[in-house]
Amino acid sequence: MTAPEFEKAPNDKKALEDGTAFTPRFDANGLVTAVVTDAGDGILLMVAHMNAQALALTIETGIAHYWSRSRNALWKKGETSGNFQHVVEMRTDCDQDAVWLRVNVLGHDATCHTGRRSCFYRKVERRDGIVTLTGDGSAPLFDAKKTYLDAT
Amino acid sequence: MTAPEFEKAPNDKKALEDGTAFTPRFDANGLVTAVVTDAGDGILLMVAHMNAQALALTIETGIAHYWSRSRNALWKKGETSGNFQHVVEMRTDCDQDAVWLRVNVLGHDATCHTGRRSCFYRKVERRDGIVTLTGDGSAPLFDAKKTYLDAT
Repeated sequence: MTAPEFEKAPNDKKALEDGTAFTPRFDANGLVTAVVTDAGDGILLMVAHMNAQALALTIETGIAHYWSRSRNALWKKGETSGNFQHVVEMRTDCDQDAVWLRVNVLGHDATCHTGRRSCFYRKVERRDGIVTLTGDGSAPLFDAKKTYLDAT
Repeated sequence: MTAPEFEKAPNDKKALEDGTAFTPRFDANGLVTAVVTDAGDGILLMVAHMNAQALALTIETGIAHYWSRSRNALWKKGETSGNFQHVVEMRTDCDQDAVWLRVNVLGHDATCHTGRRSCFYRKVERRDGIVTLTGDGSAPLFDAKKTYLDAT
């Protein structure tokens, strides 16, 4: 199978919003935003970015690939930890600059590099005028430090 | 009440990931990504961006404010349509460059500018090697064209 290629996004807003052509609008850095939720209970797991190659590989293989902005490299999520994301459904938004992946997480069912299930483990709350973060009580599901250290 | 101001994000990764200080990591354009889901059923409604002012106003008022990249302006979502977003909970992710808003949508319970409930109304599917978009059947909940035209 050849990896899918993407047509240039049309200038015509109606075609972009109502059409059946998938023409992702990559930003100045060549990226679209990817929102990842659990296909089971819908919990938000992470937000990441994809370039055209990562997006094509995700569609082709059914396993989520991203572009790591910190490492400046293609990133097959789970390659070190085993926590691959199997894509159950992909959607795009009205102006096609974001995708939504509904996934089943393999391995430890953990998505965050801290070992937690979700990257969004802290609530932002304002108390007495001060904005602070409060943990939601979620604990690491695997020893992330050891896993990533062993892999280096 | 004074609008909250945000401290500069620490270089210390542990403080950023484990700390209780909310120190959003704005990108080169001064923005963080905002993922917005319905507080009731968890459906992904939209992805948008916030600058420090929009983030502060959201925390201060409990009503979602964004930074419109297309209009280059502060954007109180719902100001024209009445579809304000009441924030039930805000979270941030491990590296604090994204926020997750769980909201109740007022007005028509519609978030997309097309009038639909969610901006993610099309599935990305590969059939016979061709990637196409398929609508999920969701219909506009209000006459968006008329609403926005009347407001101009």
